Amino acid sequence: MKVLVTGGAGFIGSHVADHCLALGLEVVVTDDLSGGFRANVPAGGRWVQGDLRDPSFVDRLWADFGPFDHVYHLAAYAAEGLSHFVRRYNYHTNLIASINLINAAVNNGTQTVVFASSIAVYGGGQTPMIEDLVPQPEDPYGISKYAVELDLRAAHEMFGLDFIIFRPHNVYGERQNIADRYRNVIGIFMNQVLLGQPMSVFGDGLQTRAFSHVDDVAPLMAKAPFVPAARNQVFNVGADTPYTVLELAEAVATAFGVPPEVKHLAARREVVHAFSDHTKVRRVFSPPPSVELAEGIGRMATWVKARGPQRPVEFAGLEVAKNLPDAWRSKRG
Amino acid sequence: MKVLVTGGAGFIGSHVADHCLALGLEVVVTDDLSGGFRANVPAGGRWVQGDLRDPSFVDRLWADFGPFDHVYHLAAYAAEGLSHFVRRYNYHTNLIASINLINAAVNNGTQTVVFASSIAVYGGGQTPMIEDLVPQPEDPYGISKYAVELDLRAAHEMFGLDFIIFRPHNVYGERQNIADRYRNVIGIFMNQVLLGQPMSVFGDGLQTRAFSHVDDVAPLMAKAPFVPAARNQVFNVGADTPYTVLELAEAVATAFGVPPEVKHLAARREVVHAFSDHTKVRRVFSPPPSVELAEGIGRMATWVKARGPQRPVEFAGLEVAKNLPDAWRSKRG
Repeated sequence: MKVLVTGGAGFIGSHVADHCLALGLEVVVTDDLSGGFRANVPAGGRWVQGDLRDPSFVDRLWADFGPFDHVYHLAAYAAEGLSHFVRRYNYHTNLIASINLINAAVNNGTQTVVFASSIAVYGGGQTPMIEDLVPQPEDPYGISKYAVELDLRAAHEMFGLDFIIFRPHNVYGERQNIADRYRNVIGIFMNQVLLGQPMSVFGDGLQTRAFSHVDDVAPLMAKAPFVPAARNQVFNVGADTPYTVLELAEAVATAFGVPPEVKHLAARREVVHAFSDHTKVRRVFSPPPSVELAEGIGRMATWVKARGPQRPVEFAGLEVAKNLPDAWRSKRG
Repeated sequence: MKVLVTGGAGFIGSHVADHCLALGLEVVVTDDLSGGFRANVPAGGRWVQGDLRDPSFVDRLWADFGPFDHVYHLAAYAAEGLSHFVRRYNYHTNLIASINLINAAVNNGTQTVVFASSIAVYGGGQTPMIEDLVPQPEDPYGISKYAVELDLRAAHEMFGLDFIIFRPHNVYGERQNIADRYRNVIGIFMNQVLLGQPMSVFGDGLQTRAFSHVDDVAPLMAKAPFVPAARNQVFNVGADTPYTVLELAEAVATAFGVPPEVKHLAARREVVHAFSDHTKVRRVFSPPPSVELAEGIGRMATWVKARGPQRPVEFAGLEVAKNLPDAWRSKRG
């Protein structure tokens, strides 16, 4: 049984590829390395670099490396806050690339697309986020993810292509890109600690998130095509216990043995308390207990320390500068 | 006051451009002529041909012909049924092009985007369609239109760009493209009558639609930016009286003075009874009574007869052939 993992040189994707190999699957990994690293690709997987926005590359993937029984679609640019300022890039990367995959999956008889969506689809006013709610996303990132969800449903109805949609939230862990200036608060904090800088907090830091270790998420995604009750279903996935961003900063400081120094930046437009209900994923997948925050932060810190600090990368193609948070403005200009 | 009308060589767009000129606005019309005709562009408008999917063209529009106070965005490929088979084209044409416009509108201080959405956003299970319902589109066309609606809301919240969204339905009338094989049932019927062919009906022909003459729709869109209560609102727009497709065929036959010959084709996946509530648009716009079907069909028939039959155009870039309705399969192959 052969599977394709997109974004497989990235953070969650490389973990999914690991778990697919552990399940005995033949794994082809693809990534454009825009946010991932070749070193993340598991040795047991076949590696193909390319850009899913290009339909001829997607067709070549199937022709040269397929057919694939299942596709795990993790490739994305998951910068919710930045997506307002990189609209076109967002929709090309998160939607058009997915559409090319859906076309190829339909045309080549692929059974299942496992899709990494996001709790960003729910929008701001809906907590606890539960799968029965009708999504009302409020930013281009969430809109692009929701459009893919809807398109997968349409492709299922019209062509019989099965889907399994996961809406993970606030995932962190080993192999996360800590050089992205715009996302992954835990990675940003760890990099700042390594660089001797205070951790930058938007607003008062009392916004809460249930930070989820990648080991709470990737194993379930990998086995999803083999769980009959998961077919054509949507699942929230991740940890349950909410922490404030300030508590998170303390946990990171503890893991690095430094005092929890933070620097408050202007608040940005974001959901204050985001937490989601995981009853459904527990019922269908019976996962082990979530990784505790201190434990998960400790594991990630070990990995981060071994790699050392990374130079934060600036997004090169801002499309709109208006109302960009000061923290994200170019430091070169 | 200067405005941009996209899709202004097309059917509804050219009527909107007419009404904008009648309101005394300075009008720039753009279109890629993929479905429109240069002859539809009103003489009083400034004409620029180009492709909105190309962001550099959109930037040039503003630089060379702007700034625009308001943008009327009518450019689209509105083939709901075909969109399953031309996913990528659908999202590029209907979503990416819109995103390029939204970026440019934000970057250049445009006040308002008037957007032609569709009742396709509602999805199948929701009748009567009323603006308070949360949309749940079921085909790529409806998904792309809904994504643009959501993105306009996001741009309003983040940047203060105003929007006015119209969800017209089943619009027909003079200047409609009657050579499109995949959409515009009235145009297809009229062309078939002119060619001496029976009118092709999917399924039993008892599906109902409230066919709306373009004069019920275009004048409201044109004046929308000048109606304060319309700002940042969504409006269904169109006629109220539902007719079956068989009744429609009879009305067309009557207008052409021929017997109502129909040919039944296999049913396709479509909403059986689509009708929408127009209470809100009546409250805010106080429009005149709808054009009666017989009257509207008569006006359109006069225009169609003067132009003569058109050769149906086949879509050149099908992306998926699986489950394509037989009626749409190539006749060349």
